[in-house]
Amino acid sequence: MTNSPSSASSPNKDLLAPLPSPTDEIELRVRYSETDRMGVAHNRVYFDWFEMGRTEFCRRKGLSYREIEERGVFLVVAEAFCRYRRPLRYDDRFLVRTALRTLSPKKATFAYELRTLDGTGLIAQGTTVHVAVNKSGTVSAMPDDIVARIGRP
Amino acid sequence: MTNSPSSASSPNKDLLAPLPSPTDEIELRVRYSETDRMGVAHNRVYFDWFEMGRTEFCRRKGLSYREIEERGVFLVVAEAFCRYRRPLRYDDRFLVRTALRTLSPKKATFAYELRTLDGTGLIAQGTTVHVAVNKSGTVSAMPDDIVARIGRP
Amino acid sequence: MTNSPSSASSPNKDLLAPLPSPTDEIELRVRYSETDRMGVAHNRVYFDWFEMGRTEFCRRKGLSYREIEERGVFLVVAEAFCRYRRPLRYDDRFLVRTALRTLSPKKATFAYELRTLDGTGLIAQGTTVHVAVNKSGTVSAMPDDIVARIGRP
Amino acid sequence: MTNSPSSASSPNKDLLAPLPSPTDEIELRVRYSETDRMGVAHNRVYFDWFEMGRTEFCRRKGLSYREIEERGVFLVVAEAFCRYRRPLRYDDRFLVRTALRTLSPKKATFAYELRTLDGTGLIAQGTTVHVAVNKSGTVSAMPDDIVARIGRP
Repeated sequence: MTNSPSSASSPNKDLLAPLPSPTDEIELRVRYSETDRMGVAHNRVYFDWFEMGRTEFCRRKGLSYREIEERGVFLVVAEAFCRYRRPLRYDDRFLVRTALRTLSPKKATFAYELRTLDGTGLIAQGTTVHVAVNKSGTVSAMPDDIVARIGRP
Repeated sequence: MTNSPSSASSPNKDLLAPLPSPTDEIELRVRYSETDRMGVAHNRVYFDWFEMGRTEFCRRKGLSYREIEERGVFLVVAEAFCRYRRPLRYDDRFLVRTALRTLSPKKATFAYELRTLDGTGLIAQGTTVHVAVNKSGTVSAMPDDIVARIGRP
Repeated sequence: MTNSPSSASSPNKDLLAPLPSPTDEIELRVRYSETDRMGVAHNRVYFDWFEMGRTEFCRRKGLSYREIEERGVFLVVAEAFCRYRRPLRYDDRFLVRTALRTLSPKKATFAYELRTLDGTGLIAQGTTVHVAVNKSGTVSAMPDDIVARIGRP
Repeated sequence: MTNSPSSASSPNKDLLAPLPSPTDEIELRVRYSETDRMGVAHNRVYFDWFEMGRTEFCRRKGLSYREIEERGVFLVVAEAFCRYRRPLRYDDRFLVRTALRTLSPKKATFAYELRTLDGTGLIAQGTTVHVAVNKSGTVSAMPDDIVARIGRP
């Protein structure tokens, strides 16, 4: 029940379109605890890596996601999708590229690619859809300055 | 970065069609370690629950997934998708319903619903696409008896 | 870097003394996502299982740990220890036995044993030390009724 | 059930002695998925961090732990201990220092400290005891060259 080296029908071609620019890029290494009995990184771990990509994407826009939450704004995950192209093994290094695909005051969609270190090999692709909510969990528009900074080129 | 009480555009309506019968059902409870700082179950944990649903789905078809792997057949995850409808908190009980949506010797698609204990409230929906590979990771048709048992009504 | 079938020097013989009675017992099964590339349950997962043992221990004393926290009392982990005796594999079933070793208004120590289903085989032993804190993280005595219920025979 | 800002009795003073030199040091940041509903890093995650510390400790000795396993040598965890001194929150940066405390051909003990970025604040301390086993899980002496490299100053 590990991730696949093989392709399969995608849920939506739009979700797997090329990443819009600008993208943010981080480099990671597979932890031992992220592998499973198949010897490869477990499928759920990719969603942690996407989350790390979002954290750094926001930081490079001048926004700490932690500070966003401290202002009472939460970008909760409404949907998460990943397509696994080739497996990753313990201690493998790889890139996570993160881009913003759509943005409105109440909703944001991020897209991700995992790539080999030289950027040529596609390891996985994914998207997450987020809805802005307040502390009580009600859908609530993000403040203008946050929308402006997340969305700036 | 937790899961959402709100809806959002789905990647594909087919993925979220009603579960085909027969479904298998298990009851789970949210672990403390499955929550995050938002106070709700983290989005990646749902993929662990889907996996538990698959394990029990196979068992009730008379197939231990562990035995399938011991025969050298691996149903690696090629795609994983989840749509989060309402949050789950620590110690909450819920149902995981698992059904087979498509099956061929080289590929299987499972669909999942998380529901409240009485079955009325929809908590999350998802799908996973699996490709059959052998020990060396090459796509390889599953033995007939495995296909027959997974697919039997 | 998985858990060992072998013994090793213990940090403290007291920590590994027989479980005091009464113990609470739950039955679990190893999830696929809990295994690592060695094919066995990863060492960190045992601490999740200890936590589940504590949750059920409290529940059978008539205390929901979730309600304890809702009253502003948090039993934060100050120490955690596990000695691994024999490995667990995917889909293995086992018992978690939990007992209270020491209790004061500001501190509690729990002890755990993981055993084979028939209770004869020792899989792992451990302890966790907890300190009672309030919402601001300051050490703070637990209310009397909570101490009385956790400690009752 | 999170980690504590407070001290508690230690299982063994030797386990918490100052780290022997040489130590290896890595810098990490708390992931969102590593937090729990208390808002701090969950107690089990520290064991993942210790494991990352070991991986880098070996690498800087000229040994890839992955290659060690590829030679059929596994340093399985026989014991794991952590004492939590102060909590870590999402996005916090910290240091993991790893040192070898004891080494023989069949057994190794590692010690760890988590510290604030400037090195002055102690966040957590821990140890792990490892037994060398072969592919079939039998205790088995490590090859001389591995022992020599792990143990060299």
